[in-house]
Amino acid sequence: MIDSKVELVLGSSSPRRQELLKLITKNFTIRTANTDETYNSTTPSEIVQEISYKKSKNIEISPRELLITADTIVTLDGKIFGKPHNYDEAFEMLQTLSNKTHCVYTGVTLRSMEKFSSFYEVSKVTFYKLDEEVIDFYIKNNNVYDKAGAYAIQDFAAVFVKKIEGDYYNIMGLPIAKLYWQLRHMLATS
Amino acid sequence: MIDSKVELVLGSSSPRRQELLKLITKNFTIRTANTDETYNSTTPSEIVQEISYKKSKNIEISPRELLITADTIVTLDGKIFGKPHNYDEAFEMLQTLSNKTHCVYTGVTLRSMEKFSSFYEVSKVTFYKLDEEVIDFYIKNNNVYDKAGAYAIQDFAAVFVKKIEGDYYNIMGLPIAKLYWQLRHMLATS
Repeated sequence: MIDSKVELVLGSSSPRRQELLKLITKNFTIRTANTDETYNSTTPSEIVQEISYKKSKNIEISPRELLITADTIVTLDGKIFGKPHNYDEAFEMLQTLSNKTHCVYTGVTLRSMEKFSSFYEVSKVTFYKLDEEVIDFYIKNNNVYDKAGAYAIQDFAAVFVKKIEGDYYNIMGLPIAKLYWQLRHMLATS
Repeated sequence: MIDSKVELVLGSSSPRRQELLKLITKNFTIRTANTDETYNSTTPSEIVQEISYKKSKNIEISPRELLITADTIVTLDGKIFGKPHNYDEAFEMLQTLSNKTHCVYTGVTLRSMEKFSSFYEVSKVTFYKLDEEVIDFYIKNNNVYDKAGAYAIQDFAAVFVKKIEGDYYNIMGLPIAKLYWQLRHMLATS
Protein backbone atom coordinates (compact mmCIF):
# COMPACT_ATOMS: atom_id res chain seq x y z
CA MET A 1 0.00 0.00 0.00
CA ILE A 2 3.03 2.29 0.03
CA ASP A 3 3.89 3.22 -3.53
CA SER A 4 7.36 2.25 -4.70
CA LYS A 5 8.00 5.51 -6.55
CA VAL A 6 10.34 6.38 -3.70
CA GLU A 7 12.82 4.41 -1.65
CA LEU A 8 12.01 4.72 2.04
CA VAL A 9 14.87 5.21 4.48
CA LEU A 10 14.32 4.99 8.23
CA GLY A 11 16.77 7.17 10.10
CA SER A 12 16.53 5.37 13.44
CA SER A 13 18.46 2.64 15.19
CA SER A 14 15.46 1.84 17.41
CA PRO A 15 14.39 -1.78 16.86
CA ARG A 16 10.91 -0.74 17.94
CA ARG A 17 10.61 1.93 15.22
CA GLN A 18 11.89 -0.56 12.67
CA GLU A 19 9.26 -3.08 13.77
CA LEU A 20 6.48 -0.48 13.57
CA LEU A 21 7.45 0.63 10.07
CA LYS A 22 7.26 -3.03 9.01
CA LEU A 23 3.53 -2.89 9.79
CA ILE A 24 3.05 -0.81 6.65
CA THR A 25 5.93 -1.80 4.38
CA LYS A 26 8.75 -4.29 4.09
CA ASN A 27 10.68 -2.11 1.66
CA PHE A 28 12.91 0.26 3.54
CA THR A 29 16.53 0.63 4.50
CA ILE A 30 18.03 1.92 7.72
CA ARG A 31 20.57 4.73 7.84
CA THR A 32 21.56 6.47 11.04
CA ALA A 33 23.86 9.23 12.28
CA ASN A 34 24.63 10.65 15.70
CA THR A 35 22.74 13.84 16.39
CA ASP A 36 23.19 16.44 19.06
CA GLU A 37 19.73 16.40 20.67
CA THR A 38 19.76 19.89 22.15
CA TYR A 39 16.94 22.22 21.07
CA ASN A 40 15.75 25.82 21.03
CA SER A 41 12.00 25.18 21.01
CA THR A 42 9.96 25.70 24.14
CA THR A 43 6.86 23.50 23.77
CA PRO A 44 6.93 19.66 23.68
CA SER A 45 5.29 19.46 20.25
CA GLU A 46 7.88 21.86 18.80
CA ILE A 47 10.80 20.17 20.58
CA VAL A 48 10.13 16.72 19.11
CA GLN A 49 9.68 18.17 15.64
CA GLU A 50 12.86 20.21 15.95
CA ILE A 51 14.91 17.19 17.06
CA SER A 52 13.39 14.90 14.40
CA TYR A 53 14.32 17.56 11.81
CA LYS A 54 17.89 17.81 13.19
CA LYS A 55 18.20 14.04 12.94
CA SER A 56 16.94 14.24 9.36
CA LYS A 57 19.44 16.91 8.30
CA ASN A 58 22.28 14.80 9.68
CA ILE A 59 21.59 11.95 7.28
CA GLU A 60 22.50 12.12 3.61
CA ILE A 61 19.95 11.06 1.03
CA SER A 62 19.98 10.69 -2.72
CA PRO A 63 17.31 11.39 -5.37
CA ARG A 64 14.25 9.09 -5.12
CA GLU A 65 14.87 8.52 -1.40
CA LEU A 66 12.42 9.58 1.31
CA LEU A 67 13.85 9.74 4.81
CA ILE A 68 11.81 9.21 7.99
CA THR A 69 13.19 10.38 11.36
CA ALA A 70 11.46 10.63 14.73
CA ASP A 71 11.96 11.76 18.29
CA THR A 72 9.93 10.96 21.42
CA ILE A 73 9.68 12.67 24.82
CA VAL A 74 7.56 12.22 27.94
CA THR A 75 6.13 15.20 29.82
CA LEU A 76 4.28 15.67 33.10
CA ASP A 77 3.20 19.01 34.56
CA GLY A 78 5.44 20.89 32.17
CA LYS A 79 8.51 18.82 33.05
CA ILE A 80 10.30 16.81 30.37
CA PHE A 81 11.44 13.29 31.23
CA GLY A 82 14.49 12.01 29.41
CA LYS A 83 16.30 8.72 29.89
CA PRO A 84 17.24 7.98 33.50
CA HIS A 85 20.97 7.67 34.26
CA ASN A 86 20.81 5.36 37.25
CA TYR A 87 18.53 3.29 39.51
CA ASP A 88 17.58 6.22 41.74
CA GLU A 89 16.62 8.47 38.84
CA ALA A 90 14.54 5.70 37.26
CA PHE A 91 12.83 5.00 40.60
CA GLU A 92 12.01 8.67 41.09
CA MET A 93 10.65 9.02 37.55
CA LEU A 94 8.31 6.06 37.93
CA GLN A 95 7.21 7.22 41.37
CA THR A 96 6.44 10.63 39.86
CA LEU A 97 4.44 9.09 37.01
CA SER A 98 2.52 6.80 39.43
CA ASN A 99 -1.20 7.50 39.74
CA LYS A 100 -1.01 10.39 37.26
CA THR A 101 -1.58 11.16 33.59
CA HIS A 102 1.45 12.08 31.50
CA CYS A 103 1.91 12.89 27.82
CA VAL A 104 4.07 11.21 25.20
CA TYR A 105 5.04 13.32 22.19
CA THR A 106 6.60 11.96 19.03
CA GLY A 107 7.77 14.26 16.24
CA VAL A 108 8.32 12.89 12.75
CA THR A 109 10.14 14.47 9.82
CA LEU A 110 9.75 13.25 6.24
CA ARG A 111 12.42 14.53 3.87
CA SER A 112 13.32 14.06 0.21
CA MET A 113 15.87 16.14 -1.72
CA GLU A 114 13.03 18.37 -2.93
CA LYS A 115 11.02 18.94 0.22
CA PHE A 116 10.39 18.07 3.83
CA SER A 117 7.56 18.16 6.32
CA SER A 118 7.28 17.57 10.04
CA PHE A 119 4.33 16.62 12.19
CA TYR A 120 3.75 15.32 15.70
CA GLU A 121 1.38 13.11 17.61
CA VAL A 122 0.59 13.22 21.32
CA SER A 123 -0.88 10.47 23.49
CA LYS A 124 -1.97 10.63 27.14
CA VAL A 125 -1.04 7.78 29.46
CA THR A 126 -2.61 7.25 32.90
CA PHE A 127 -0.68 5.05 35.34
CA TYR A 128 -2.09 2.92 38.12
CA LYS A 129 -0.78 3.69 41.61
CA LEU A 130 2.53 1.86 41.70
CA ASP A 131 3.91 0.43 44.94
CA GLU A 132 7.66 0.40 45.60
CA GLU A 133 7.83 -3.36 45.15
CA VAL A 134 6.56 -3.26 41.57
CA ILE A 135 8.78 -0.31 40.63
CA ASP A 136 11.86 -2.04 42.07
CA PHE A 137 10.98 -5.28 40.29
CA TYR A 138 10.52 -3.47 37.00
CA ILE A 139 13.78 -1.51 37.10
CA LYS A 140 15.76 -4.61 38.06
CA ASN A 141 14.28 -6.77 35.32
CA ASN A 142 14.09 -4.41 32.35
CA ASN A 143 16.48 -2.08 30.57
CA VAL A 144 14.97 1.23 31.60
CA TYR A 145 18.07 3.32 30.89
CA ASP A 146 17.47 3.82 27.19
CA LYS A 147 13.82 4.81 27.66
CA ALA A 148 12.40 8.29 28.09
CA GLY A 149 10.32 8.21 31.27
CA ALA A 150 12.02 4.96 32.38
CA TYR A 151 9.43 2.61 30.91
CA ALA A 152 8.36 0.91 27.68
CA ILE A 153 4.65 0.29 27.27
CA GLN A 154 5.20 -2.97 25.38
CA ASP A 155 7.08 -4.83 28.14
CA PHE A 156 6.09 -5.59 31.76
CA ALA A 157 5.27 -1.87 32.20
CA ALA A 158 2.04 -2.71 30.36
CA VAL A 159 0.64 -3.40 33.85
CA PHE A 160 1.37 0.19 34.92
CA VAL A 161 -1.03 1.56 32.33
CA LYS A 162 -4.62 2.08 33.44
CA LYS A 163 -5.63 3.91 30.30
CA ILE A 164 -4.28 5.61 27.23
CA GLU A 165 -5.88 8.29 25.12
CA GLY A 166 -4.47 8.65 21.62
CA ASP A 167 -2.22 6.49 19.50
CA TYR A 168 -0.64 3.46 21.22
CA TYR A 169 2.16 3.18 18.66
CA ASN A 170 3.04 6.80 19.24
CA ILE A 171 3.85 5.83 22.84
CA MET A 172 6.13 3.12 21.47
CA GLY A 173 7.95 5.76 19.44
CA LEU A 174 6.37 6.03 16.01
CA PRO A 175 2.79 7.17 15.21
CA ILE A 176 2.44 4.64 12.43
CA ALA A 177 -1.15 5.49 11.46
CA LYS A 178 -0.58 9.22 10.98
CA LEU A 179 2.74 8.44 9.27
CA TYR A 180 0.97 6.10 6.84
CA TRP A 181 -1.64 8.66 5.81
CA GLN A 182 0.98 11.42 5.53
CA LEU A 183 3.12 9.18 3.33
CA ARG A 184 0.18 8.31 1.10
CA HIS A 185 -0.68 11.99 0.80
CA MET A 186 2.93 12.97 0.08
CA LEU A 187 3.36 10.26 -2.54
CA ALA A 188 0.03 11.08 -4.18
CA THR A 189 0.94 14.74 -4.55
CA SER A 190 4.60 14.35 -5.48
CA MET B 1 5.76 -10.67 40.34
CA ILE B 2 3.01 -13.26 40.18
CA ASP B 3 3.23 -15.46 43.26
CA SER B 4 3.77 -19.15 42.64
CA LYS B 5 1.28 -20.28 45.30
CA VAL B 6 -1.01 -21.15 42.44
CA GLU B 7 -0.53 -22.71 39.04
CA LEU B 8 -1.92 -20.43 36.36
CA VAL B 9 -3.89 -21.99 33.51
CA LEU B 10 -4.88 -19.95 30.45
CA GLY B 11 -8.09 -21.25 28.92
CA SER B 12 -7.57 -19.81 25.46
CA SER B 13 -6.12 -21.00 22.18
CA SER B 14 -5.52 -17.41 21.06
CA PRO B 15 -1.79 -16.90 20.37
CA ARG B 16 -2.33 -13.24 21.12
CA ARG B 17 -3.72 -13.91 24.63
CA GLN B 18 -0.84 -16.28 25.29
CA GLU B 19 1.64 -13.62 24.24
CA LEU B 20 -0.01 -11.01 26.46
CA LEU B 21 -0.03 -13.25 29.52
CA LYS B 22 3.71 -13.76 28.98
CA LEU B 23 4.16 -10.05 29.68
CA ILE B 24 3.47 -10.77 33.35
CA THR B 25 4.53 -14.39 33.84
CA LYS B 26 6.28 -17.21 32.05
CA ASN B 27 4.71 -19.83 34.32
CA PHE B 28 1.39 -20.92 32.93
CA THR B 29 -0.11 -23.79 31.02
CA ILE B 30 -2.75 -23.74 28.33
CA ARG B 31 -5.93 -25.82 28.49
CA THR B 32 -8.86 -25.28 26.17
CA ALA B 33 -12.30 -26.67 25.45
CA ASN B 34 -14.97 -25.87 22.91
CA THR B 35 -17.69 -23.67 24.30
CA ASP B 36 -21.12 -22.79 23.00
CA GLU B 37 -20.86 -18.99 22.83
CA THR B 38 -24.55 -18.17 23.03
CA TYR B 39 -25.64 -15.90 25.88
CA ASN B 40 -28.62 -14.60 27.82
CA SER B 41 -27.21 -11.24 28.87
CA THR B 42 -28.30 -8.07 27.17
CA THR B 43 -25.48 -5.55 27.67
CA PRO B 44 -22.00 -5.91 26.13
CA SER B 45 -20.23 -5.86 29.51
CA GLU B 46 -22.48 -8.64 30.80
CA ILE B 47 -22.23 -10.67 27.58
CA VAL B 48 -18.42 -10.90 27.63
CA GLN B 49 -18.40 -11.81 31.32
CA GLU B 50 -21.10 -14.46 30.77
CA ILE B 51 -19.20 -16.05 27.88
CA SER B 52 -15.85 -15.92 29.71
CA TYR B 53 -17.56 -17.65 32.64
CA LYS B 54 -19.08 -20.31 30.35
CA LYS B 55 -15.62 -20.93 28.88
CA SER B 56 -14.28 -21.26 32.41
CA LYS B 57 -16.89 -23.79 33.53
CA ASN B 58 -16.09 -25.95 30.50
CA ILE B 59 -12.50 -26.51 31.59
CA GLU B 60 -11.58 -28.83 34.43
CA ILE B 61 -9.14 -27.63 37.04
CA SER B 62 -7.48 -29.24 40.04
CA PRO B 63 -6.58 -27.84 43.47
CA ARG B 64 -3.87 -25.11 43.40
CA GLU B 65 -4.82 -24.19 39.83
CA LEU B 66 -6.18 -20.79 38.85
CA LEU B 67 -7.89 -20.63 35.46
CA ILE B 68 -8.07 -17.50 33.29
CA THR B 69 -10.61 -17.29 30.45
CA ALA B 70 -11.64 -14.32 28.34
CA ASP B 71 -14.04 -13.21 25.64
CA THR B 72 -13.96 -10.15 23.39
CA ILE B 73 -16.65 -8.41 21.33
CA VAL B 74 -16.86 -5.23 19.26
CA THR B 75 -19.91 -2.95 19.40
CA LEU B 76 -21.07 0.11 17.49
CA ASP B 77 -24.37 1.92 18.01
CA GLY B 78 -25.75 -0.99 20.01
CA LYS B 79 -24.86 -3.57 17.35
CA ILE B 80 -22.50 -6.42 18.15
CA PHE B 81 -19.86 -7.33 15.58
CA GLY B 82 -18.75 -10.93 15.51
CA LYS B 83 -16.35 -12.61 13.11
CA PRO B 84 -17.15 -12.02 9.42
CA HIS B 85 -17.99 -15.11 7.35
CA ASN B 86 -16.88 -13.88 3.93
CA TYR B 87 -15.30 -11.02 2.00
CA ASP B 88 -18.52 -9.05 1.65
CA GLU B 89 -19.32 -9.21 5.36
CA ALA B 90 -15.78 -8.16 6.26
CA PHE B 91 -15.94 -5.29 3.78
CA GLU B 92 -19.25 -4.10 5.16
CA MET B 93 -18.01 -4.29 8.76
CA LEU B 94 -14.93 -2.20 8.05
CA GLN B 95 -16.96 0.29 6.02
CA THR B 96 -19.35 0.61 8.96
CA LEU B 97 -16.51 1.15 11.44
CA SER B 98 -14.84 3.73 9.13
CA ASN B 99 -14.74 7.31 10.46
CA LYS B 100 -16.55 6.28 13.67
CA THR B 101 -15.81 5.35 17.28
CA HIS B 102 -16.60 1.79 18.36
CA CYS B 103 -16.16 -0.10 21.62
CA VAL B 104 -14.19 -3.25 22.36
CA TYR B 105 -15.27 -5.23 25.43
CA THR B 106 -13.28 -8.04 26.97
CA GLY B 107 -14.65 -10.09 29.86
CA VAL B 108 -12.29 -12.13 32.03
CA THR B 109 -13.10 -14.89 34.50
CA LEU B 110 -10.65 -16.07 37.17
CA ARG B 111 -11.58 -19.40 38.75
CA SER B 112 -10.07 -21.74 41.30
CA MET B 113 -11.84 -24.72 42.88
CA GLU B 114 -12.80 -22.50 45.82
CA LYS B 115 -13.98 -19.34 44.13
CA PHE B 116 -14.31 -17.34 40.94
CA SER B 117 -14.64 -13.74 39.88
CA SER B 118 -15.36 -11.99 36.61
CA PHE B 119 -14.59 -8.48 35.45
CA TYR B 120 -14.50 -6.61 32.16
CA GLU B 121 -12.65 -3.80 30.48
CA VAL B 122 -13.88 -1.55 27.69
CA SER B 123 -11.81 0.50 25.24
CA LYS B 124 -12.99 2.99 22.63
CA VAL B 125 -11.43 2.92 19.18
CA THR B 126 -11.78 5.73 16.61
CA PHE B 127 -11.09 4.84 12.98
CA TYR B 128 -9.82 7.12 10.26
CA LYS B 129 -12.04 7.42 7.19
CA LEU B 130 -11.15 4.33 5.17
CA ASP B 131 -11.31 4.32 1.40
CA GLU B 132 -12.36 1.19 -0.51
CA GLU B 133 -8.81 0.60 -1.73
CA VAL B 134 -7.36 0.28 1.75
CA ILE B 135 -10.22 -1.93 2.98
CA ASP B 136 -9.84 -4.24 -0.01
CA PHE B 137 -6.07 -4.40 0.45
CA TYR B 138 -6.47 -5.21 4.14
CA ILE B 139 -9.01 -8.00 3.70
CA LYS B 140 -6.99 -9.61 0.93
CA ASN B 141 -3.72 -9.54 2.86
CA ASN B 142 -4.79 -10.43 6.40
CA ASN B 143 -6.79 -13.17 8.01
CA VAL B 144 -9.84 -11.18 9.05
CA TYR B 145 -12.18 -14.14 9.42
CA ASP B 146 -11.20 -15.08 12.96
CA LYS B 147 -11.44 -11.51 14.24
CA ALA B 148 -14.43 -9.82 15.80
CA GLY B 149 -15.02 -6.62 13.83
CA ALA B 150 -12.85 -7.93 10.96
CA TYR B 151 -9.59 -6.34 12.14
CA ALA B 152 -6.68 -6.81 14.52
CA ILE B 153 -5.13 -3.65 15.91
CA GLN B 154 -1.63 -5.15 15.97
CA ASP B 155 -1.35 -5.83 12.22
CA PHE B 156 -1.71 -3.50 9.20
CA ALA B 157 -5.04 -2.33 10.67
CA ALA B 158 -2.90 -0.20 13.01
CA VAL B 159 -3.18 2.44 10.28
CA PHE B 160 -6.99 2.47 10.60
CA VAL B 161 -6.79 3.69 14.18
CA LYS B 162 -6.82 7.43 14.73
CA LYS B 163 -7.16 7.18 18.47
CA ILE B 164 -7.94 4.82 21.29
CA GLU B 165 -9.26 5.56 24.73
CA GLY B 166 -8.68 2.89 27.34
CA ASP B 167 -6.48 -0.20 27.42
CA TYR B 168 -4.70 -1.12 24.18
CA TYR B 169 -4.16 -4.74 25.22
CA ASN B 170 -7.86 -5.06 25.91
CA ILE B 171 -8.43 -4.38 22.20
CA MET B 172 -5.99 -7.20 21.44
CA GLY B 173 -8.09 -9.53 23.60
CA LEU B 174 -6.77 -9.48 27.16
CA PRO B 175 -6.72 -6.47 29.55
CA ILE B 176 -3.36 -7.47 30.96
CA ALA B 177 -2.97 -4.54 33.39
CA LYS B 178 -6.32 -5.03 35.13
CA LEU B 179 -5.75 -8.78 35.08
CA TYR B 180 -2.37 -8.34 36.78
CA TRP B 181 -3.75 -6.22 39.62
CA GLN B 182 -6.75 -8.54 40.08
CA LEU B 183 -4.42 -11.54 40.25
CA ARG B 184 -2.19 -9.83 42.80
CA HIS B 185 -5.23 -8.94 44.87
CA MET B 186 -6.69 -12.45 44.61
CA LEU B 187 -3.39 -14.10 45.54
CA ALA B 188 -2.80 -11.70 48.42
CA THR B 189 -6.19 -12.44 49.94
CA SER B 190 -6.34 -16.19 49.28
